[in-house]
Parts: sequence; C-alpha cells; structure tokens
Amino acid sequence: MPSVKNMILVWQGNYRFLAKNEKGLSVNFDAPIPNGGEETALSPMENVLASLAACSSYHVISILRKKRQNFSDYSVEMVADRRDEPPRVFLSIHLKYIIKGKNVSEEAVKSAIRLSEEKYCSVGGMLKNSVKITSSYKILKEQ
Amino acid sequence: MPSVKNMILVWQGNYRFLAKNEKGLSVNFDAPIPNGGEETALSPMENVLASLAACSSYHVISILRKKRQNFSDYSVEMVADRRDEPPRVFLSIHLKYIIKGKNVSEEAVKSAIRLSEEKYCSVGGMLKNSVKITSSYKILKEQ
Repeated sequence: MPSVKNMILVWQGNYRFLAKNEKGLSVNFDAPIPNGGEETALSPMENVLASLAACSSYHVISILRKKRQNFSDYSVEMVADRRDEPPRVFLSIHLKYIIKGKNVSEEAVKSAIRLSEEKYCSVGGMLKNSVKITSSYKILKEQ
Repeated sequence: MPSVKNMILVWQGNYRFLAKNEKGLSVNFDAPIPNGGEETALSPMENVLASLAACSSYHVISILRKKRQNFSDYSVEMVADRRDEPPRVFLSIHLKYIIKGKNVSEEAVKSAIRLSEEKYCSVGGMLKNSVKITSSYKILKEQ
C-alpha cells in the first residue's frame, strides 16, 4: 500500500510561492533576479539539490548512529551542472560529505554513504534515472 | 556550456539540516516524528514535491502573463503516492492548478500548463523518468 502525501502551493505575487504540508510546515520559493524574481528564497531547482543532500544525510547520519560513530560536525558540499537549454535540468551532481569526529571509522562512513545512495535515499532514487550523481567524503579528526 | 550551482548543507543536530546557496538564501529540513525527527520543517521528499509545483508554476505564471491573462489568485494542490519500501520514491504525482481571475481563457491555461510540463519545468524534466506526473486545472470566475 503506497502512502499518500497532500500539499498545497499558494502564489504570493510575482514569482514568490509558499508551499505547506498537512501540518502547516512550509517552504518558500522565489526566482533569481535575472529571471524576474526577487531572490527572497531559494529557487525550486536549488531546493531539489538541497533536498537530495538532506535526504541522503538523514540516512547517512542514521546509519552512523547505529554504528556508534562519534561525530560532532557534519556537512555536505554540493556542486551541480545545469543545462542551459530548457528544460534546465541538472546534468550531474556531486555530493562531498564532510564528517568531523573522534575516531570516526572510514569503513563506517563509506558503508553509510553507499547504503544511503544505493538503497535508502528516496530523492536520489527518483533523480538517478535522469542525473549522474557522484560522491566523495572527507573525515576530519577532532582533537 | 552548463552553468554550475554550489550549495552547502549543514547538520543542526538530530535530523535537522540547513542548506544555503552562494547568496546565503536557505531552507530547513527535518524528519517526521515517527522517523526520529522533530517536525520543525518539511522533509526532503515534501520539499521535492513542493519544488515540482513551484517550478511548474513559475512557468505557468510567466506564460499566463505573456498571454495578458488577468488573474488574482493562483494555487496548486498536490497529491503524491509514495512507495512503502525503500527507496520510498513517489510513484505518482497529481498537480491540480487552480486559477481565479476575470475572463481567464481556458485555452491560455491549458497551453501554459502543457508548455510548462512538456518543455520548461526542469524539476519535472528530472522527475518524469521515474514518476508518473499528471495534472488537471480549475478556473474560478472572479465577480
């Protein structure tokens, strides 16, 4: 049985939009100034790129916790190439995972990223038929 | 020449994340409570669904303006079916465009939606290889 998700997007004038889920949690969208927007919020494509990193990170962190890895800082740098002609899709996305902690195991990090990317991350699962997604990682030692 | 987009995602504790673009515009992510989150923000999958509606709406509104359509309210209702097994991708998404205005032309609305979905919307362009996307519309007459 698939589960059902309902949301609504409401126009706020010009190219500004507000989207809400059933619980009232929301996100704002705008367009870049050269595209007629006011840059009050991220664009839809920026939100999709960020959602890919967030989705993958949810699973990476969940797996690192299960493996009892002790990390204090975590971030992901994203680089995406975008087509210049419409539809202006991402051609490729690279995610660089940066994890800082005490005695973080490289094997645990590699395995968490692999499981997230190959099995669990649903945003990646939808994008990878269209976009070449690659990744790398860096482990920083906490003193 | 493709254009390059750089962003960074930073872990905020538990399953909360903040993502920023080069200009400092940002979006927050969290997970639902049953998945260990605190529901302080939309999930990555909710953001992708909202991004699809926002991306398509940017082009629909841009085309309706070019066609000199006079509308005062605009919204999109989204319904998505999500797989229960990992990766928990969307199986199908329906977008219902609701446009309120004076003498809004049905032909203009149909054509704007079709052009957005088939040619311009880049989020849809990436998702439609994986997800069945359908749409409908309703035009409300302003008194």
